[in-house]
Amino acid sequence: MATPSVHDELATFAAERDWPQFHTPENLAKSISIEAAELLELFQWSPDADEHRVQDELADVLTYAYLLAARLGKHPDDIVRTKLEKTREKYPVEKSRGNATKYDQL
Amino acid sequence: MATPSVHDELATFAAERDWPQFHTPENLAKSISIEAAELLELFQWSPDADEHRVQDELADVLTYAYLLAARLGKHPDDIVRTKLEKTREKYPVEKSRGNATKYDQL
Amino acid sequence: MATPSVHDELATFAAERDWPQFHTPENLAKSISIEAAELLELFQWSPDADEHRVQDELADVLTYAYLLAARLGKHPDDIVRTKLEKTREKYPVEKSRGNATKYDQL
Amino acid sequence: MATPSVHDELATFAAERDWPQFHTPENLAKSISIEAAELLELFQWSPDADEHRVQDELADVLTYAYLLAARLGKHPDDIVRTKLEKTREKYPVEKSRGNATKYDQL
Repeated sequence: MATPSVHDELATFAAERDWPQFHTPENLAKSISIEAAELLELFQWSPDADEHRVQDELADVLTYAYLLAARLGKHPDDIVRTKLEKTREKYPVEKSRGNATKYDQL
Repeated sequence: MATPSVHDELATFAAERDWPQFHTPENLAKSISIEAAELLELFQWSPDADEHRVQDELADVLTYAYLLAARLGKHPDDIVRTKLEKTREKYPVEKSRGNATKYDQL
Repeated sequence: MATPSVHDELATFAAERDWPQFHTPENLAKSISIEAAELLELFQWSPDADEHRVQDELADVLTYAYLLAARLGKHPDDIVRTKLEKTREKYPVEKSRGNATKYDQL
Repeated sequence: MATPSVHDELATFAAERDWPQFHTPENLAKSISIEAAELLELFQWSPDADEHRVQDELADVLTYAYLLAARLGKHPDDIVRTKLEKTREKYPVEKSRGNATKYDQL
């Protein structure tokens, strides 16, 4: 039997707890911001942070991002790939190489 | 020839532009928070938002989250799975079912 | 005639545009996070940022924070003062001096 | 003797703990985002939240916002007022009244 994908596992996990009712796009967007800030908190007073704690907080961001992707009926990898195509056009190699200023305001 | 994974594509995209120097864990953590807020902005005054714009902003969150996972030498799916194991123990089905209050403060 | 306070000015500004209907506590909380991220964006790739842009983004954070304080029927200064009393007890001078680690986890 | 302003109190509080070294504009910007998300967390699964907890989290946002204003050598009220002048021009009453869509994208 095939191993379930992490997306199936997340869906099952939420369904067993009757949580999909809370997972509206708006609530998931709030949740992503909240978890992103918990990740940022590891770097609040220093540019360095413990890798295990970073992984742990990143996991929460990814989890809610995966749940929101599922609400959109998309695989996260496809969402990233579609955007990457657009970004490639926006930041041509020759104009963006090693340039932090342009990175922002090309 | 095998299709490159989205992770390989992102790494190539950044390397071609000499951007990995900017992709420190701290800068990626800031970037995830910034993009999470752009996603949240779609819901600033209403619980509903255009699906295409949601996908577009979610893509940016996922992109930086994938880049940070790569900095940790991990696949995002593995990071989510590892955390899900912990969360399963923290929120047993019988205690959490359909309960938003407990969802928060079990 | 007395100069109106900035709080009166904000209230008038919103009322003239019939915006208080949008200024629920939840929407203001979202707005504060969104504007905080726009401020953070100035520091996305560098620890330095243009002072005028910092002031401009900080203004938006403060504006929504003032509007939320007004929703609570409180003056922002009193909210800060009340919390400062608690924080003083939590971080006694002798334990916290010059200590970033303790700053976080005393 | 005059009562010290809340800004003087905050400055004294930080100086006594030797904390101004941590209060760079970048760290304060991160801190504002982090505290804004703790405020948002009160509304993660519901549009309603306990007023005392809202006040408590708003206090932290305001505190870091006041500290950043001090770093810019400005009074928070003046920062809000300066921006309000600009916003008044950007959102004329007749175009913005009761209009959430325009509120966003006039």
